[in-house]
Amino acid sequence: MNKPEKLPHFRVVGTNPIRPDGLDKVTGRAVYGDDFKIAGMLHGKVLRSPHAHARIKSIDTRRAAKLPGVRAIITGADFPKPSVAMVPMGEGGYVDMNDTADNVIAKGKAFYDGHVIAAVAADNPHIAEEAVALIDVKYEVLPPVMDVRSAMAPGAAVLHETFNPGAFFMKTHKVLPNASRLELGAGDVARGFKEADVIVEREFTTETVHQGYIESHICTAQWDERGQVTIWTTTQGAFAIRDQVAIVCAVPMSHVRVVPLEIGGGFGGKDTAYIEPLAAMLAKKADRPVKVVMSRAESLRATGPSSGTFIRAKMGAKKDGTLVAADLSFAYEAGGFPGGPIAAGVLTSITRYNIPNVRLEGFDVLVNKPKVKPYRAPGATQSNFAVEQVMNQLAEKLGMDPVEFRIRNAMKTGDRLILGFPCPPVGGVEMLEAVKKHPHYKAPLGKNQGRGVAFSFWFGAGLTSSAELSVNSDGTVQMCTGSCDLSGTRLTLAMQAAEALGIDVEDVSPTIGDTHSVGYTLQSVGSRTTFATGIAVYEAAQKVLKEMAGRAALLWETDPANVAVDRGDFTDMNNPAHRFTFRELADKLEHSGGPVSAQSTVTPERVGFQLAAHLVDIEVDTETGKVDILRYTAFQDAGKAVHPDFVAGQIQGGVVQGLGWALNEEFWYDAKGRLCNASLLDYRMPIALDVPMIDVVILETPNPGHPFGVRGVGEVPIVPPAAAVANAIYDAIGVRMDALPMKPGRVLQKIKEQKSAAA
Amino acid sequence: MNKPEKLPHFRVVGTNPIRPDGLDKVTGRAVYGDDFKIAGMLHGKVLRSPHAHARIKSIDTRRAAKLPGVRAIITGADFPKPSVAMVPMGEGGYVDMNDTADNVIAKGKAFYDGHVIAAVAADNPHIAEEAVALIDVKYEVLPPVMDVRSAMAPGAAVLHETFNPGAFFMKTHKVLPNASRLELGAGDVARGFKEADVIVEREFTTETVHQGYIESHICTAQWDERGQVTIWTTTQGAFAIRDQVAIVCAVPMSHVRVVPLEIGGGFGGKDTAYIEPLAAMLAKKADRPVKVVMSRAESLRATGPSSGTFIRAKMGAKKDGTLVAADLSFAYEAGGFPGGPIAAGVLTSITRYNIPNVRLEGFDVLVNKPKVKPYRAPGATQSNFAVEQVMNQLAEKLGMDPVEFRIRNAMKTGDRLILGFPCPPVGGVEMLEAVKKHPHYKAPLGKNQGRGVAFSFWFGAGLTSSAELSVNSDGTVQMCTGSCDLSGTRLTLAMQAAEALGIDVEDVSPTIGDTHSVGYTLQSVGSRTTFATGIAVYEAAQKVLKEMAGRAALLWETDPANVAVDRGDFTDMNNPAHRFTFRELADKLEHSGGPVSAQSTVTPERVGFQLAAHLVDIEVDTETGKVDILRYTAFQDAGKAVHPDFVAGQIQGGVVQGLGWALNEEFWYDAKGRLCNASLLDYRMPIALDVPMIDVVILETPNPGHPFGVRGVGEVPIVPPAAAVANAIYDAIGVRMDALPMKPGRVLQKIKEQKSAAA
Repeated sequence: MNKPEKLPHFRVVGTNPIRPDGLDKVTGRAVYGDDFKIAGMLHGKVLRSPHAHARIKSIDTRRAAKLPGVRAIITGADFPKPSVAMVPMGEGGYVDMNDTADNVIAKGKAFYDGHVIAAVAADNPHIAEEAVALIDVKYEVLPPVMDVRSAMAPGAAVLHETFNPGAFFMKTHKVLPNASRLELGAGDVARGFKEADVIVEREFTTETVHQGYIESHICTAQWDERGQVTIWTTTQGAFAIRDQVAIVCAVPMSHVRVVPLEIGGGFGGKDTAYIEPLAAMLAKKADRPVKVVMSRAESLRATGPSSGTFIRAKMGAKKDGTLVAADLSFAYEAGGFPGGPIAAGVLTSITRYNIPNVRLEGFDVLVNKPKVKPYRAPGATQSNFAVEQVMNQLAEKLGMDPVEFRIRNAMKTGDRLILGFPCPPVGGVEMLEAVKKHPHYKAPLGKNQGRGVAFSFWFGAGLTSSAELSVNSDGTVQMCTGSCDLSGTRLTLAMQAAEALGIDVEDVSPTIGDTHSVGYTLQSVGSRTTFATGIAVYEAAQKVLKEMAGRAALLWETDPANVAVDRGDFTDMNNPAHRFTFRELADKLEHSGGPVSAQSTVTPERVGFQLAAHLVDIEVDTETGKVDILRYTAFQDAGKAVHPDFVAGQIQGGVVQGLGWALNEEFWYDAKGRLCNASLLDYRMPIALDVPMIDVVILETPNPGHPFGVRGVGEVPIVPPAAAVANAIYDAIGVRMDALPMKPGRVLQKIKEQKSAAA
Repeated sequence: MNKPEKLPHFRVVGTNPIRPDGLDKVTGRAVYGDDFKIAGMLHGKVLRSPHAHARIKSIDTRRAAKLPGVRAIITGADFPKPSVAMVPMGEGGYVDMNDTADNVIAKGKAFYDGHVIAAVAADNPHIAEEAVALIDVKYEVLPPVMDVRSAMAPGAAVLHETFNPGAFFMKTHKVLPNASRLELGAGDVARGFKEADVIVEREFTTETVHQGYIESHICTAQWDERGQVTIWTTTQGAFAIRDQVAIVCAVPMSHVRVVPLEIGGGFGGKDTAYIEPLAAMLAKKADRPVKVVMSRAESLRATGPSSGTFIRAKMGAKKDGTLVAADLSFAYEAGGFPGGPIAAGVLTSITRYNIPNVRLEGFDVLVNKPKVKPYRAPGATQSNFAVEQVMNQLAEKLGMDPVEFRIRNAMKTGDRLILGFPCPPVGGVEMLEAVKKHPHYKAPLGKNQGRGVAFSFWFGAGLTSSAELSVNSDGTVQMCTGSCDLSGTRLTLAMQAAEALGIDVEDVSPTIGDTHSVGYTLQSVGSRTTFATGIAVYEAAQKVLKEMAGRAALLWETDPANVAVDRGDFTDMNNPAHRFTFRELADKLEHSGGPVSAQSTVTPERVGFQLAAHLVDIEVDTETGKVDILRYTAFQDAGKAVHPDFVAGQIQGGVVQGLGWALNEEFWYDAKGRLCNASLLDYRMPIALDVPMIDVVILETPNPGHPFGVRGVGEVPIVPPAAAVANAIYDAIGVRMDALPMKPGRVLQKIKEQKSAAA
């Protein structure tokens, strides 16, 4: 693989071409989940538990079945035992498929408000809805467990008599009736704190938040006569959905075809099969295609949010600004089934600083909320909220500039990581220096205004991707990958193909294959698509060029070793008159051995770390407690920005989501564990009026694990905003925030406490 | 590549599993051309020339455009100049794309009854039809040229002032205003005939016939907002249609996506874009999806039939039965544009016999009929009808058994072919010996009953195919190829994947990709799919096994060279306890480097020749001239029959089509060149009552060009029936037939001539 430093210059990478899917999307022609319709289609609706924790005593579907137009009713009893117990999922972890199956539809017990009890397929959605209301369910209501601390307290109601501790990167071990635990560390923490001249110790809480993608979950399922089911769905990963449906419905994977439609946002929340197995089972029972559309309320009540947390953070540093010890304990909600982002939360908490003595403890805690799902850099925002505030406090105690303090401790290329391996090339120090030098950092501030900084890290993911390239005789190229396009990756992949082949990006026609037509490709998560699928595209392009060089050799009657290939330029090193452009040679393939196609399936391991530093100016309305964002500058290392405008868009989107998490978003549950704000009116995500233009500074420290130096960019920008805003609030009005969201009431409370303490 | 002789035994190849698409097809669930519907779809109808040869003076669409519900009208003027002048097509030849474009829609001149003049898209088919009738066209009617002899006669009306001589395998040279010519030969023909003890010289004619596929041509086209058109069509080759549409509509190939639907028969007639460019242009003009359905009459009037011919055959043999000379001249209809199957007709005429002195001459003749298309072993049936009758006559003159005479002269492995290369492994002698030994050959015959034999050859084709295999964690496998399935090739390809991987065929899920999702694959023609795409599947399977062996090595901590792979069984040669089945190892791929997918694009050249010998018993009703088929045994070498039932089905289907050609089928044109029998009532194809059970004897001489020894089987069975029946009629009643079809009137005429000659 070419090393980035060997590439003389980029022709396509680094430019900002127009996305090929853009026009179809703005004109409404693109087919999203709800745009897909099929003849004879029934409509499915779902009965959901109104109780957060309840034993299901009986389900009587007789009245519903009698309603004219009802074609099928399913309950948990219609589902077989999953065909596989444990499967690899997402970012290196495993999922207990019995849990996945029980999360799809309750069997004996409902674990959260909105947990599926039964589903109906009927001639139209209204009949289905009416039928759902006619299903009689008898519950034994159990006390709900609604936050990590009460779930871990003695005497808490127990969700699962037994469970398989979930893992996400790492294994956890069951230590409490509702919790499992992991721990890792380095050095001697007690000694480290003894060496420390300043120590900060604090507690933090964060609330459950949702990814809030614009498009809800929508799918349609249809069986053929030989028992193969096709599912059209809006998803981040067609193969992930396929595998889950196959296992939960106990059919061979080869009998499930998942066709990914356009996706209206995912952010980590759209690679779990929620309604797909329901649609499949209803369609099978009714022997008709069935479409299931989740309402916004259903999506908020019953699809994976990110964990609410409780965090204890203690860190110490020496006078010279050297961090010497960190003792961090994290409890993350898992929701109704084990397996939240605890490992990622713990591991990303301090992996950007060199700290010799560390203890990191994490709890994966069962609560009566929907099973949590990854949400953009899963787990990192919560731990960052804690650690980056403590960092600022330490800097204050040391009398150091907070950025300077971070530079002093920043992880550098080759430093030993807590995971045991040396840090791959990173530009953390360079980024923090850029922050310091940026005009924003020294700009004047007014009354009740403050500036905050936060520095963040995310691993990113590699995982398996496939790409296929076919050369057409007119020199254009088909490119098919298995990666669902959440953010313009059709284009960023086509750009990499064009770069590698030396052709214009307009000459590459990108397509997303379904699970029956493309090589195995894991989901578009972990900021991995432009990186990992990009490598698959690059490798396929190398195969194409090699094959084409062989054809040139054939036509020139020379040895392939004599053909020099500079991307799409082929020359005979022994005869300068022999020269083909890509297009010229493409035209000659048919009669020199046939058209050329090549495929590559890769599982890259040299993932480039993502680092981001954010700088925010805020103003606090001290009468209402409302925090306004005045100015925001996000610094991020893209490795190499394939499409700088898209990178900026990813960063801006991540920041806005992070600001929502920081200031407004939270699930409100009542005492019975019922979600009270299951609408986008009440679940308050930021709108355009809430944020200024987000300024973006893209840095480029090439990732040697990618031929063009690419790093993932999508996830880390959500991580710093909460901490940066908290630091800015302290800078503005001198109060330390210890809970998310930092909503007006909470800020006002802090101001009141400050006043009464001063009084 | 494994040689067939090295394969110990077959587990899957050679069995008869149930086809995966069967149930969907018999229950009507499969989506054929007309089953495809899309929201907002308009309906296209076509105005066709009522004249066989006419200059178009003017086209006035104003009245049609005013009809409410009409959304777009196109004429030849709406089409750009094709973006490419000449393209490779089909079996190694070239096609002049200006001719293709002019065949799609007439520009200035109509060349046959049914030639497209204009097309209309409207809200429903009725309005479209009404609008078509409102288009006013002024023609200058020209004299039509309706058969090869009058086309080549001095003073014949000239179709094209200039033309690019078409080629199919070989180049031809323009020698007459309406004809181009090719010639090849060996030895000294004059001397050969001097050596001959017996000589037979005869003339033959055959009529234009149609492939008669059950499903007509039907397609739907839709453009997206960035100028990419998707076409859903019933075709033998999605890439072929794509390339033609791209060139005729002058858009980049990457902007045309062809999705192949199920196909209700093709037989060589469904890889030309007839209505696809019309639908595309209508859809573009109307900015709505447009569906075009050809009626049966349109299909018969205006899609490629096979050539009517005029043939002169002179052959000589020595007393000992050795053929010494052949002088053969063939004139084949090309239809309204050059490029019929003349080269194939000429080359297959004698390529099964060793004849030292040969002259072969072929004329590709323009006539005012639809441009001819390949029809199952294109060109071979016609030349075989001549040569195999002459062979029988020579045998009779020599007093030899006709099969013995053929054995004496049969081409054997390694014999030098007229094309200049040695004959690849064939089992012709063995086949003819099998005929002689078969009970059918000696069975008693009654009055007016006769037995005929014919021996035939077909090249088959290689060409480019792609296949992709993806291993699922449950051990099942996705297989995607680009080959449209005309005859069960989904299954014969899945069987080869299963054989190569050592798994059950039920564990392979076959899919046909569209042009955007699968590697370049040429059309399903030339009996090539099971052979050539089979090799692509096999090669992809070898890549999968190699990758999996590497994973086994990783898991066993040994060198990949130590892992023995016997199809799907992996063993550590240094540790017999280390053993994986395919399924066991499939489950471990995710965590040993990621799921495995592999692709292969191949263009195999070592195509196995197809040989067939047919034996037919007939009875002539001497009062009506009607010929009944009493018994039929078809011998054919399949190389290795992947699915013997399918091979038998191919042979039976080919025989029935050959019998239709022999006895009934012909285009009837009136004096003005209008097709009079453009319906399946009047174009009389055989029905079940017309044929007895066709007995099949499958022989297996492995083709070393395929890992399992496979040869194509689909085409050659159509070749012998006409000649075999002609020989049987002579055997029954002593008349020599010299024209196809051998319909009752023609046989009766021969009987009358025989009687008057005897009187």
